[in-house]
Amino acid sequence: MIREQTMPAISAEPPVAFRPLRIPQVAVNGFWGEHIDAVANKTVDILYERCLAAGMFDQIDPTRPVPEMRLPFRKNQYGVMDTITAQMFWDSDVAKVIEAAAYALYRRPNPALEAKMDGIIEMFAGLQLEDGYLNSWYIRMQPGQRWTNLRDCHELYCAGHLMEAAVAYHQATGKRKLLDAMMRYADHIGRTFGTGPGQKPGYCGHEEIELALVRLARETGERRYLELAKYFVEQRGQQPHYFDVEAAARGENARGSWPASLHADFRYTQSHVPVRQQQKVVGHAVRAMYLYSGMADIAAEYGDSSLTDALEILWDDLTGKQMYVTGGIGPSASNEGFTDYYDLPNDTAYAETCASVGLVFWASRMLGSAPDRRYADVLEQALYNGALTGLSRDGSRFFYDNPLESHGQHHRWDWHKCPCCPPNIARLVASIGTYIYGVSDSGVAVHLYADSVAKLEVAGAKLTLTQSTDYPWDGAVRLTLGLDRPTRFTLSLRIPAWCKDAKVSVGGENVPVETGSSGYLEIERQWRDGEVVEMALPMAARPVRAHPKVRQDTGRVAVARGPLVYCLEEADNGAGLNSVLLPRGLGGMATAPIAEFGGAVSLSLPALREDEGAWSAELYRSDVPGLSDTTARFVPYYLWDNRAPGEMLVWVRSST
Amino acid sequence: MIREQTMPAISAEPPVAFRPLRIPQVAVNGFWGEHIDAVANKTVDILYERCLAAGMFDQIDPTRPVPEMRLPFRKNQYGVMDTITAQMFWDSDVAKVIEAAAYALYRRPNPALEAKMDGIIEMFAGLQLEDGYLNSWYIRMQPGQRWTNLRDCHELYCAGHLMEAAVAYHQATGKRKLLDAMMRYADHIGRTFGTGPGQKPGYCGHEEIELALVRLARETGERRYLELAKYFVEQRGQQPHYFDVEAAARGENARGSWPASLHADFRYTQSHVPVRQQQKVVGHAVRAMYLYSGMADIAAEYGDSSLTDALEILWDDLTGKQMYVTGGIGPSASNEGFTDYYDLPNDTAYAETCASVGLVFWASRMLGSAPDRRYADVLEQALYNGALTGLSRDGSRFFYDNPLESHGQHHRWDWHKCPCCPPNIARLVASIGTYIYGVSDSGVAVHLYADSVAKLEVAGAKLTLTQSTDYPWDGAVRLTLGLDRPTRFTLSLRIPAWCKDAKVSVGGENVPVETGSSGYLEIERQWRDGEVVEMALPMAARPVRAHPKVRQDTGRVAVARGPLVYCLEEADNGAGLNSVLLPRGLGGMATAPIAEFGGAVSLSLPALREDEGAWSAELYRSDVPGLSDTTARFVPYYLWDNRAPGEMLVWVRSST
Repeated sequence: MIREQTMPAISAEPPVAFRPLRIPQVAVNGFWGEHIDAVANKTVDILYERCLAAGMFDQIDPTRPVPEMRLPFRKNQYGVMDTITAQMFWDSDVAKVIEAAAYALYRRPNPALEAKMDGIIEMFAGLQLEDGYLNSWYIRMQPGQRWTNLRDCHELYCAGHLMEAAVAYHQATGKRKLLDAMMRYADHIGRTFGTGPGQKPGYCGHEEIELALVRLARETGERRYLELAKYFVEQRGQQPHYFDVEAAARGENARGSWPASLHADFRYTQSHVPVRQQQKVVGHAVRAMYLYSGMADIAAEYGDSSLTDALEILWDDLTGKQMYVTGGIGPSASNEGFTDYYDLPNDTAYAETCASVGLVFWASRMLGSAPDRRYADVLEQALYNGALTGLSRDGSRFFYDNPLESHGQHHRWDWHKCPCCPPNIARLVASIGTYIYGVSDSGVAVHLYADSVAKLEVAGAKLTLTQSTDYPWDGAVRLTLGLDRPTRFTLSLRIPAWCKDAKVSVGGENVPVETGSSGYLEIERQWRDGEVVEMALPMAARPVRAHPKVRQDTGRVAVARGPLVYCLEEADNGAGLNSVLLPRGLGGMATAPIAEFGGAVSLSLPALREDEGAWSAELYRSDVPGLSDTTARFVPYYLWDNRAPGEMLVWVRSST
Repeated sequence: MIREQTMPAISAEPPVAFRPLRIPQVAVNGFWGEHIDAVANKTVDILYERCLAAGMFDQIDPTRPVPEMRLPFRKNQYGVMDTITAQMFWDSDVAKVIEAAAYALYRRPNPALEAKMDGIIEMFAGLQLEDGYLNSWYIRMQPGQRWTNLRDCHELYCAGHLMEAAVAYHQATGKRKLLDAMMRYADHIGRTFGTGPGQKPGYCGHEEIELALVRLARETGERRYLELAKYFVEQRGQQPHYFDVEAAARGENARGSWPASLHADFRYTQSHVPVRQQQKVVGHAVRAMYLYSGMADIAAEYGDSSLTDALEILWDDLTGKQMYVTGGIGPSASNEGFTDYYDLPNDTAYAETCASVGLVFWASRMLGSAPDRRYADVLEQALYNGALTGLSRDGSRFFYDNPLESHGQHHRWDWHKCPCCPPNIARLVASIGTYIYGVSDSGVAVHLYADSVAKLEVAGAKLTLTQSTDYPWDGAVRLTLGLDRPTRFTLSLRIPAWCKDAKVSVGGENVPVETGSSGYLEIERQWRDGEVVEMALPMAARPVRAHPKVRQDTGRVAVARGPLVYCLEEADNGAGLNSVLLPRGLGGMATAPIAEFGGAVSLSLPALREDEGAWSAELYRSDVPGLSDTTARFVPYYLWDNRAPGEMLVWVRSST
């Protein structure tokens, strides 16, 4: 459903009703502008330097000596399998750096950065084989073994990220070198995989190639890439199971020791049954999100309601039973993914940054047919909380996993041995403009509120849409329409489900806020140049309680304000955050700017605190602990661990 | 410090001041009498039948064909190492069955049972090699490989359990066959291990041989077994590390893949440093308890205060930072043992039955030098809760792990693939009489209150001590002394720390209950035949709260009465036990008999219940849940899962 607005239609019957804008169509200021600046001015350089320091280019650059072989699945000092020092998916990490850098180049020209990216692209181009194959691991480290282990070795996943990078870099710079290389590689992949004679009926253990081929198809107008993406989506989970066949060909027990043990029932890779039969969100969280994004793309391009039906079941399954209040997903480290319904532990939450980034991808694709706040609200929730938390405020440090409670041991990384998250959150932030609007032939949907200026076309008119807002700190949004001529179209404004008593006026006249099932206020009228829509989305702090089956949140309450989930930090409240109790209904709230964080808003709430001072050596006792009045100071969750290290807590005990 | 009263002293300076009685000296009635009857009438036969069904005797019986080899560390279908189908420690399980049966024979003559045990002993005797070696695994399954992997293969552990069985069976039946065999085996072990020329400086990865050799020494009067036990205790953790040396001799990477990975730092086997330097309770919980029991035995036999000093540090470490309120220990399944301080998860608690049995062993040995309720209170806590829970009320089913919260998925086993717990709890219950008293030259200490009649000698007089009590259901205890002549001695009565306002009278005259630091009321006087001591130990239900650092119990309260920890079960309270809230101070309690469980006492407490009915598909919402008055019915934790299966909860939410 994501379509580049200027690209040719490649589908026979394109059912994509609402298309996002291209990144350069939206100039983003305010809250997101600062984050984009951090990425453009700092993060992308850091990413490049840390890839360099990690030795990634030693592997990729064909002009350098082949580095010492490292076993992909070696054991660490404790005998635990340690995959994430493997180099086999480094192509993907470097590709995401190129993609983030491409978006950063829209923000400001940066010849030095562009030269670095050109240099990396030269490496890949020099690496590519005559037949189009392009993967640094299998060309340089394990030659002769290509396409022998799709289950574990991320080969098509790497190809997908390079395709995304190629599309982004072409759009940003007009340079075709990587795009041409990836078209040749895509054609090689198309010859290699399929159900025809002599082809391998395989697909990747880590989904990504599917959505990437759709992007490549949209950028190049070549329908064959769309067909290939459709093949990969539809072949998944067919019998006989390709990963069994492939393992047998390697002479391995198909479901034996690790890593095969992860694949005992193929849920880990969402290949346990064909995709249209999948009804529960299972397995590795990032893989699931990328698959569903690809499914949504194919559903949109082919108008395939059977895929959409499956996606809606999966959406309700995820958001109704398996999602943290932060939009984090995938609670377990052992499979980097999903476990049981309502199993959402806080202090051990994995909730990988990449998984929330992937949820944003999926949610945005679910908005292609019509505005629907079921999707846009979760997009916003995952964006501001589960995803953005992965990037420090200054753009220099990263979270990989995102617990909702820390006893002081969890901190941002300079880098990670599996460096997937840093470039993933960077490319999302740098491309945030594309998530704000959906544009159809006869209307504009405002999915996100963000200070920005967008230039687009609707109903044949040129429209400049200026959002002036201090969102997410304040719910006042002023939309000014610049039109080259009076034009009738529908302006659809998301009224977030968290917002009570939203007010909307057009030209100073109040409009009844009736949203129907979509959750969008649709205003269809003849719009004129200079007209102003004003919105007031009240942002009182609200308590959030979890379903009683979420045992880890029993008797606890989270605090949210607008799209932001808040947390307690030791820096504001001292140690022992589990001694803090909020009243059953939140009491009088005070907001105040957070001195260290520019315009960010803290919340102060009356609370009680249990006396912990009387405890000494005993482990158990009968005394009822004393309680005293206190004020609990909350800060946005995405900002945690940007100050002095210490405890953090999202789900705070509630008085009864 | 445990010494069979009629056995010869084997130490030069025996500092064991308070000795337990032999099992047949104490006729136990009441609460424990019923449990002993269940073991004697049902459990021991079940144990034998299930060992038979599991194929154990196929391995042990030298007249049968050698069974098909099973790999000791094979992987299961999920690729997870599955040690507990190994047969290599089956000798130990069968040994514990013999030991439990021996104690059962005191309860009632049972020629059929005795014949079965004689049959097993014939097997072992027939198996024993010329040089005294006796281990069914290494003789029948892996001949030629004995003593090559002490770290993993439980060889000396099996020997230890057979020695305990031999001592118990000799005491109960007077038959020497197994005892003689085990003396020959102990002598073989003594020749094999040590620091002398040609000896292996090794010790077992799973402690047990240490305490078993002390029992063997006490039974036979042979000091050399005591010396060998002392060697095993003191050699542990010395450098160069034996498990490294041994692994190298096998040609293995000493700390490579599993199972070696468990041994990365040797804490798993408590061999990371020599025992006197150990200050933190670490590793596999049962191993730790057995080691500390052996250390306490050696400390007592040799009057070694350096060992006692280490044990006291370890005791405070365990009971002050690492013990469940049930006396369960070892929270983690992954190492069957200890993790971090204050890490006591409830629903995933491992808290193996055997570990609490081992804690009873250790605690009883800490009572050897003087009565001290620090030890006796924990002995009682672990006995009534962590250990006894492992046996169903009728003696037919078993718990291996003992969580403090179940969502309905946790149930008693008919049998377990690692069947260590069933015979372990059976032998403890059947020998409970020996834990009730400690007797010194000049006094009797009453450690446990239990309806019983004990015959013993103190200060040269014959004493019949009759306890009449409904304990643990009621705190009234009437002690009647039968003496063959007036005798001066000290009667030490434990006043449990949980008991407020205990009353004690002698011959109807109140005695001030002043206990000093020991927690025992010491009454030294001239006692006469027929004198009566009456005690009233009030048993109001009391709330128990955990140290604030136990994050899993934050905002929760447990309910205890007397020595028993209570729990909520779905059978009494419906599903959704986490919706129940107790008031901050427990309100008016009502007790009532539990119809299904004879004289057992339930507790009813006023409580609140959160309304869960309003929830539907949403995962989060802002509404404050409604509360209504209810009555929460608690039953003793040890009785849980004896009725309809369902949820169970020890730590209940507390109102604030």
